[in-house]
Amino acid sequence: MPLTPATLIGSQSIPGSGPSIHAHDPVANQPLEPEFPDSSPSQIDAACQLAEAAFDPYRAAPLEARAALLEAIAEEILALGDPLIERAMTETGLPRLRLEGERARTTGQLRFFAAIVRQGRFLALTLDSALPERKPVPRPDLRLRKIPVGPVAIFGASNFPLAFSVAGGDTASALAAGCPVVVKAHPSHPGTSQLVGQAIQRAVAASGLPEGIFSLLHGHQNSVGEALVLHPAISAVGFTGSRKGGLALVKLASQRPVPIPVFAEMSSINPVFLLPAALAARIESIAQGFVDSMTLGTGQFCTQPGLLFVIDSPETQNFLKLAGEKLQQKPATPMLNSGICNAYATGLQKLLKSNTPQLVAQGQPNAEGLRGQAALFSTDAASFLAHPELSEELFGPSSLVVLCAHPAELLRLASSLEGQLTATLQMDREDTALTQQLLPTLERKAGRILVNGFPTGVEVATAMVHGGPYPATSDSRSTSVGALAIDRFLRPVCYQDFPAELLPPELQQNNPLNLTRFENGKARP
Amino acid sequence: MPLTPATLIGSQSIPGSGPSIHAHDPVANQPLEPEFPDSSPSQIDAACQLAEAAFDPYRAAPLEARAALLEAIAEEILALGDPLIERAMTETGLPRLRLEGERARTTGQLRFFAAIVRQGRFLALTLDSALPERKPVPRPDLRLRKIPVGPVAIFGASNFPLAFSVAGGDTASALAAGCPVVVKAHPSHPGTSQLVGQAIQRAVAASGLPEGIFSLLHGHQNSVGEALVLHPAISAVGFTGSRKGGLALVKLASQRPVPIPVFAEMSSINPVFLLPAALAARIESIAQGFVDSMTLGTGQFCTQPGLLFVIDSPETQNFLKLAGEKLQQKPATPMLNSGICNAYATGLQKLLKSNTPQLVAQGQPNAEGLRGQAALFSTDAASFLAHPELSEELFGPSSLVVLCAHPAELLRLASSLEGQLTATLQMDREDTALTQQLLPTLERKAGRILVNGFPTGVEVATAMVHGGPYPATSDSRSTSVGALAIDRFLRPVCYQDFPAELLPPELQQNNPLNLTRFENGKARP
Repeated sequence: MPLTPATLIGSQSIPGSGPSIHAHDPVANQPLEPEFPDSSPSQIDAACQLAEAAFDPYRAAPLEARAALLEAIAEEILALGDPLIERAMTETGLPRLRLEGERARTTGQLRFFAAIVRQGRFLALTLDSALPERKPVPRPDLRLRKIPVGPVAIFGASNFPLAFSVAGGDTASALAAGCPVVVKAHPSHPGTSQLVGQAIQRAVAASGLPEGIFSLLHGHQNSVGEALVLHPAISAVGFTGSRKGGLALVKLASQRPVPIPVFAEMSSINPVFLLPAALAARIESIAQGFVDSMTLGTGQFCTQPGLLFVIDSPETQNFLKLAGEKLQQKPATPMLNSGICNAYATGLQKLLKSNTPQLVAQGQPNAEGLRGQAALFSTDAASFLAHPELSEELFGPSSLVVLCAHPAELLRLASSLEGQLTATLQMDREDTALTQQLLPTLERKAGRILVNGFPTGVEVATAMVHGGPYPATSDSRSTSVGALAIDRFLRPVCYQDFPAELLPPELQQNNPLNLTRFENGKARP
Repeated sequence: MPLTPATLIGSQSIPGSGPSIHAHDPVANQPLEPEFPDSSPSQIDAACQLAEAAFDPYRAAPLEARAALLEAIAEEILALGDPLIERAMTETGLPRLRLEGERARTTGQLRFFAAIVRQGRFLALTLDSALPERKPVPRPDLRLRKIPVGPVAIFGASNFPLAFSVAGGDTASALAAGCPVVVKAHPSHPGTSQLVGQAIQRAVAASGLPEGIFSLLHGHQNSVGEALVLHPAISAVGFTGSRKGGLALVKLASQRPVPIPVFAEMSSINPVFLLPAALAARIESIAQGFVDSMTLGTGQFCTQPGLLFVIDSPETQNFLKLAGEKLQQKPATPMLNSGICNAYATGLQKLLKSNTPQLVAQGQPNAEGLRGQAALFSTDAASFLAHPELSEELFGPSSLVVLCAHPAELLRLASSLEGQLTATLQMDREDTALTQQLLPTLERKAGRILVNGFPTGVEVATAMVHGGPYPATSDSRSTSVGALAIDRFLRPVCYQDFPAELLPPELQQNNPLNLTRFENGKARP
């Protein structure tokens, strides 16, 4: 299928008319054809208006139609075949295996949400029967369901060109909730976005559902995303990216005549707590696992472990030596784009030039192209506390080991942390007491706590949380991966004393859709 | 029990040291003894720090302890006996029967949340078993529960001195979630607040739970509430009151170094749609029901129906005449305080002096004291659209009937509305087609839709929604009444590959608390 740059407005493909950009191949370090013009203000408006027009018919369509659409999108993405993988490789520098895995994750996630839609648990169906004889006043008949909030604006992320982009978790969960989506493609992979957008467009066309439930905008200028967030038809925003970008959208959305929620997944440094008995028992595998995790995908994971806390000891020095040796073998791998590559290089230079922290080891030096050289640093607890910038995310394959004098210092540092997506414990049975002391703090700091793993895998599952307290996200009560991601785009409505013929099917007395409901305090069927 | 003005900081009662106010008897129109000094900055800080210290032990306590505390608070409120009712009567001008009913609602609500705590559904317990053999990578063991967000700041509302105040729905749901609360008493009923605060204090003391889970501040100056919202220990805010007050708190909370959510229930004009067949069939009872609902509690309900849409006809003119006659019999009843009374009088005078709308009828004129004279106005659709101020809430017993030329105009006006707590349909079988046209719009505008009732009763029930799109609330995904109110104060945490001995009881494999959990896609037990 040809790669034709265009703004997708429902079923239409219209050439953008704003300033253009080329995507950039970070390995060859050269621009890629074709050029992608930004969507124009009138195109943004048209996409949002079409989403608004599609909202009522889409949410009224049967759950089965929504589920089938999600599955059809998965099929259409697979039907794109190898050209999708190849384009994503040239636009992101990510290797084939990673992108094939990410495609499987993306299509699996669409099917996962199809199953969630069919199950209907997200509707929170609740019925309280009328009690006409109750004194002093009768109880009315009350029935609750959750309905979608309205059209959702979604910003593709740079670091997962498939799984957190045009057909990623935000799009899948918003469509599952019953919300039309208008996606702004990330300018770092516009061609990949275009191909996936066309796949969704085909799935929508074949579904018979209203065309306006999906549109795709291009925009390398901030004005495109801003106009999208400010459009009156938009009811919520999904974003994965930098803290600066996320907070700008949060602020913008709060200044609308009608403010709307922004679910921004922003920054996290994902602390690892390496406890003494685990260190004694598994020094080699922990060093390997940590170095692999911190350098995976050139460190460009939201869950990259940028921080490791350990109690200083001779064994700790061995750990640093071992981890350093392993790191030195890591090649400098491609970074996603020049912005990220330059920011990483600048941040790294700043660390290397400063007296705090100390360099433990570096990975292999940069070859040609936009690449990131891995680096491991260490410092002591007092220096860490004295330099708040050390607990800020440096996006790329750099991590910092903080040596604590004793367990109390480890606990104090844990309390000093900002909100995180993840916190990881490397522990052995003899570390249980210390772990129990840490856990209440870690629960307050992170959305996911791992034992004896590394945080860079985020399973798509009903029990997953990919969220966390500020600044990991803008709303700690939400997750952008897993079944609960759908809750971001729903709100409850209560129907009081409705005659049978006006009730939506899922709230009718005989439960024609056979969905689990909470009736008079009990789950049924 | 004596009424001793004091800031309650955990188990301590400490005289405030800020500027003082007297409560005011709106019926006698005179100040009430004693005077209540504002809590000082150091008292606010002490209350918040104690809440922070109480958070981890409180959330670790068994669910049964939380449930028993809520029930004990209900008992202690009842044990206050008639002095509570009498103080509330003098501070609010509300009649005895209403306040006794509100007390029953308040204690019932505490018991309702006790039952919700025991049931444990709010924990959203979800388990995905490990799949060690899965290719290409094994699936880890994932277990999710919701945990409380942290200490919550709660602002008592003026218009429900018991049910939306110190021990109201916000406090009950936050304590149920596992969050310590710091309440700022409404300065319109500080004595009622003091008595209820002391009752909660006694219940906490008897429970053996940490004293810091409840503190009570006084503050007639904005600075008290502001310091509370800005305190780093506070993790969320519950508020019921004016749009201006709610938006000020939202803005303040968003400017913190760590922004926190504010659940503000603000303003709503609660439109009633009176459809033709219902009008023809039940003109008398609808007129009576509407006038009763709009004047109930001197119109000082969040759900007061301030707007009625009807299609103009000779029957409509009869309705206005009938409603006007019924309104003329309504006495001018007390308003809560001079601020509300003056704002109502000013707003009413403005309407009476303008050419739009027209006065249909007024209630009986004001007698002595702070009272509100009821008023009913009418206008046509074009004037309504031309005067946006007519769709703003005027807090008090005033409502506006909007005469539409035809059904299409009624639909257009419905679409033009801001977000609402409620929307009400008065309909008969022959109105079904028009109702079906209206419903998608009403679902998007309101949190609760009623058929053939009036909105001023808000049942405490699992299926209740007392929330709605902006500006009805600051977060349309929430409710401040009903089982889902607890969700405001919870966030999900995922536990990955935890050894059995580290799992909280509700996530342990053998389910020792016997709570409903969602295990590998199925609800159990």
